[in-house]
Amino acid sequence: MEVFFSDDIGGGRCRLSPEESRHCVKVMRHRTGDEIHVIDGRGSMMDCRIEEASADGVVAVVSETHSGWGGHPYELVMAVCPTKNNERFEWFVEKAVEVGVDSIVPVIGDRSERKEYKIERACRIALSAAKQSLKGAVPAISAPVTVRDFIAGSSPDALRLIACCFDVGGPRISVCKALVGFSGRRVEVLIGPEGDFSAVEAETATAAGFVPVSLGASRLRTETAALTAVEAVYLRYME
Amino acid sequence: MEVFFSDDIGGGRCRLSPEESRHCVKVMRHRTGDEIHVIDGRGSMMDCRIEEASADGVVAVVSETHSGWGGHPYELVMAVCPTKNNERFEWFVEKAVEVGVDSIVPVIGDRSERKEYKIERACRIALSAAKQSLKGAVPAISAPVTVRDFIAGSSPDALRLIACCFDVGGPRISVCKALVGFSGRRVEVLIGPEGDFSAVEAETATAAGFVPVSLGASRLRTETAALTAVEAVYLRYME
Repeated sequence: MEVFFSDDIGGGRCRLSPEESRHCVKVMRHRTGDEIHVIDGRGSMMDCRIEEASADGVVAVVSETHSGWGGHPYELVMAVCPTKNNERFEWFVEKAVEVGVDSIVPVIGDRSERKEYKIERACRIALSAAKQSLKGAVPAISAPVTVRDFIAGSSPDALRLIACCFDVGGPRISVCKALVGFSGRRVEVLIGPEGDFSAVEAETATAAGFVPVSLGASRLRTETAALTAVEAVYLRYME
Repeated sequence: MEVFFSDDIGGGRCRLSPEESRHCVKVMRHRTGDEIHVIDGRGSMMDCRIEEASADGVVAVVSETHSGWGGHPYELVMAVCPTKNNERFEWFVEKAVEVGVDSIVPVIGDRSERKEYKIERACRIALSAAKQSLKGAVPAISAPVTVRDFIAGSSPDALRLIACCFDVGGPRISVCKALVGFSGRRVEVLIGPEGDFSAVEAETATAAGFVPVSLGASRLRTETAALTAVEAVYLRYME
């Protein structure tokens, strides 16, 4: 099954971008009258029939809309410090979208070697992974913020976790223990840079209500730690 | 902390290979008398002191041996069909080693597009990932076998799981449910190719005692499915 993406939907029709249109008509060789599947990136998948098969702009009539398509029973925000090697962060984006995430926030920590992050490529990877893994919602990749700003803007009603490699106040609990005791839906996870969070960042987070957690005994790279947290949430909500 | 690897240990000394020796002497600039850490690839890490700092063959005297170094409380065999795109399988090898796996068996299924697999690069990646993630044991990468031969050679006392995308006999249970009810240590997991297992393979596996499991609602690529199974085991045994 192949899906296309459109953010231009209205009047019972959706229009594909020039890039999606070329792929639809030139590569997949779709013609007027063909049935195609289109996601809106906000959670829905539409069964459509092509009305105009132009390589500049395919127009398709929506016959049915499936909301919550390929969704998951939780709401997960991953705030992750971009890795020095950008490929590793992009790999995380692809895998997190496949498994199930709602929002990825590149965060810059006190010890981040990478102080800037351009989100364009990550956005394209997220769109591609959502289409490939048949999800109606394309996770948002936010503009980067500092760890402190992320903490200040976090949701008090979410289960908020900070995965750091040292104890803050008391000893850390495992991510599994933190998740088991939570009955809500929204989880926010902070993952630090290669050099970990600073003590001040960890203290600021716990003072704001974040639970310091361990991701187990293995020494994980930043992107593996981030994916492990996504998997822990995915598996926790699995029936 | 940096570790070297040696499989030439005896008489209270370990000798590094020419490649490891060059890295030790030329890149890390170690000299006679320096302390280094060396893994034996079978679970132990040795504190050593360099006796001969030659770029052709470093010799170091072992002062202390730490067994079970960077180990985990389970024994996990991952039998995974290599992906068409080899990079994706190699990525799985790196990440599985980081998280914690004991053995990776490339398996060839009825519907595998890739019918052969050369293990040399995967072995190098496993060694590098074990050193990087501070594990004394380097997971074994076996020569490829068919899915049927893997099933025939599997251990009846292990929890054996086959992750297929269709029901076999009754409905599949989730990988989490299968793991929760198991009190042993050894887990063996079969992950199919892009086109899934054949019905005959799935039936052969269940007849031999494999439990058919689902990896949840997300549609995962082969390598992501395989890593999700590793993470499920890692998280299940986390305290």
